[in-house]
Amino acid sequence: MRMLINVPETVVADALRGMAAAHPELTVDVENRVVVRRDAPVAGKVGLVSGGGSGHEPLHAGFVGPGMLSAAAPGEVFTSPVPDQMVRAAAAVDSGQGVLFIVKNYTGDVLNFDMAAELAEDEGVRLAKVVVDDDVAVTDSTFTAGRRGTGATLFVEKIAGAAAEEGAPLERVEAIARRVNERSRSFGVALSSVTTPAKGTPTFDLPPGRLELGIGIHGEPGREQRGMMTSREIADFAVDAVLEDRPPTGPVLVLVNGMGGTPLLELYGFNAEVQRRLKERRVAVARTLVGNYVTSLDMAGCSVTVCQVDEELVRLWDAPVRTAALRWGL
Amino acid sequence: MRMLINVPETVVADALRGMAAAHPELTVDVENRVVVRRDAPVAGKVGLVSGGGSGHEPLHAGFVGPGMLSAAAPGEVFTSPVPDQMVRAAAAVDSGQGVLFIVKNYTGDVLNFDMAAELAEDEGVRLAKVVVDDDVAVTDSTFTAGRRGTGATLFVEKIAGAAAEEGAPLERVEAIARRVNERSRSFGVALSSVTTPAKGTPTFDLPPGRLELGIGIHGEPGREQRGMMTSREIADFAVDAVLEDRPPTGPVLVLVNGMGGTPLLELYGFNAEVQRRLKERRVAVARTLVGNYVTSLDMAGCSVTVCQVDEELVRLWDAPVRTAALRWGL
Repeated sequence: MRMLINVPETVVADALRGMAAAHPELTVDVENRVVVRRDAPVAGKVGLVSGGGSGHEPLHAGFVGPGMLSAAAPGEVFTSPVPDQMVRAAAAVDSGQGVLFIVKNYTGDVLNFDMAAELAEDEGVRLAKVVVDDDVAVTDSTFTAGRRGTGATLFVEKIAGAAAEEGAPLERVEAIARRVNERSRSFGVALSSVTTPAKGTPTFDLPPGRLELGIGIHGEPGREQRGMMTSREIADFAVDAVLEDRPPTGPVLVLVNGMGGTPLLELYGFNAEVQRRLKERRVAVARTLVGNYVTSLDMAGCSVTVCQVDEELVRLWDAPVRTAALRWGL
Repeated sequence: MRMLINVPETVVADALRGMAAAHPELTVDVENRVVVRRDAPVAGKVGLVSGGGSGHEPLHAGFVGPGMLSAAAPGEVFTSPVPDQMVRAAAAVDSGQGVLFIVKNYTGDVLNFDMAAELAEDEGVRLAKVVVDDDVAVTDSTFTAGRRGTGATLFVEKIAGAAAEEGAPLERVEAIARRVNERSRSFGVALSSVTTPAKGTPTFDLPPGRLELGIGIHGEPGREQRGMMTSREIADFAVDAVLEDRPPTGPVLVLVNGMGGTPLLELYGFNAEVQRRLKERRVAVARTLVGNYVTSLDMAGCSVTVCQVDEELVRLWDAPVRTAALRWGL
């Protein structure tokens, strides 16, 4: 236990109170656990709602704001939010132009967002949904049928968010979100286990000096455990895994993501190796983002996400965004 | 060892190569270890140069860009940069309007920046210097005569950077930097030790379930070790320590800073308690920033920095900034 908390039961509510205090540009409903950009609903604009278990911050609430999500619904740590949260979020952001749900592919999330979609549609909200499933490490993991949704969620939320901000209609925003997901692949590596507040001890066993290749963002098993590898070897393994699954035929957007417990100094060093490997594999890089964005509490480790982009996707990536965790041009 | 590195000897160079790849808006001289905004020197603008040991990322290189630092000189992990780095940085950013060195108060940094200032002045650069010493925990610590420089460095770099960007002359930029430092106080808490790449094992002893109050950003001893405290109790202790040292007579800027290994979820929860305590103490909060900004590699823990602001300082804080780690309005 080395946690900065009061009691495990209030971790999410405490964090939402802290977000509210730090970000007056957000409307934070602590009781009902919905984070909404303050100017929602924005007239003529499609709403974007995402959500999922807490513990992956800044995902998703840190991505709420102009140019990205309209609202986020945080669940308990590593636990899906309940449908009522997404229904409230959809109602809060719908301007009449409809709402897109962005859902990471975990069984609980998919079920709860589906139920929320039915309920919101009953209330007259036009809804579309995209499920993010970019993780090439394994299929049918602990909490997932099919592939897990990880780093590509950031790409989908940013790029679809930019399209919505420009005034694209729901069908178009949905199509762009799907396009980003289809062109994205991720692979993650754990250098330590992860400790949830409720459990207080590591959720899986990873002896010192070992790492797990293909880890999920909740500590779900990857492909294999190995003895320690260098940054260079890990980059080769991760980059090759994503390129093998979907060989790019054009330039890519790269996310070198920290799992939360790995210092930024190391992440930048890892990025050097990722870029080297991409160059060796003759993949052109359009843009790179390095940092802790799709995390797993205090887990040490990293993931690599690549998304093959075209001119439109690069333009939407570059478009202004103003959220707690991702900001430029506004 | 759970590090994402190649070998300890290349950690800083690897990170600089990774920064260069991710940030084409920076000129990164990997060999000489200087990070400069690409458009430097900016005509008519005072240059701002900072630097210090690596391992505190995003400080300082992550704060180079329009509206903040002109250049940064990263040393080895937890080791001062050498004078030649700061001389190169000063030469690269001086437009003829002079250069301000922003130095955290550690003996090695102060000596090396002083030597660099003499050398740069010999080359015709007009130089001023401000030493940041905001940490109220202890005086005359392991690496420091007087108080340590910690979280206030971010405030000084942002606010003085904004003044320089507006075209303020050197004397004015220096005066503002001094004003920010004089009005800033910090207090940090460690929930775990820190492991440097060179050593590979924790640099100090902090048994599980214990914390250290008043820790430095290199793991220097604080005031005392204690058994585990709640987020609420830690906030009370830290806020009271900074307010006692300099009772504010007006609104404050607040930095709730993570040491690197504490999840953002917990930092936001901690912010809720910091804000509660400030309110109980009748201190008005003008702005709040929450995140990992002045870190200590993988150390779990946090620090609180408050700076009493006036209208001018708030305006300069809000002014546009575009760096790797802090961005708004550009």
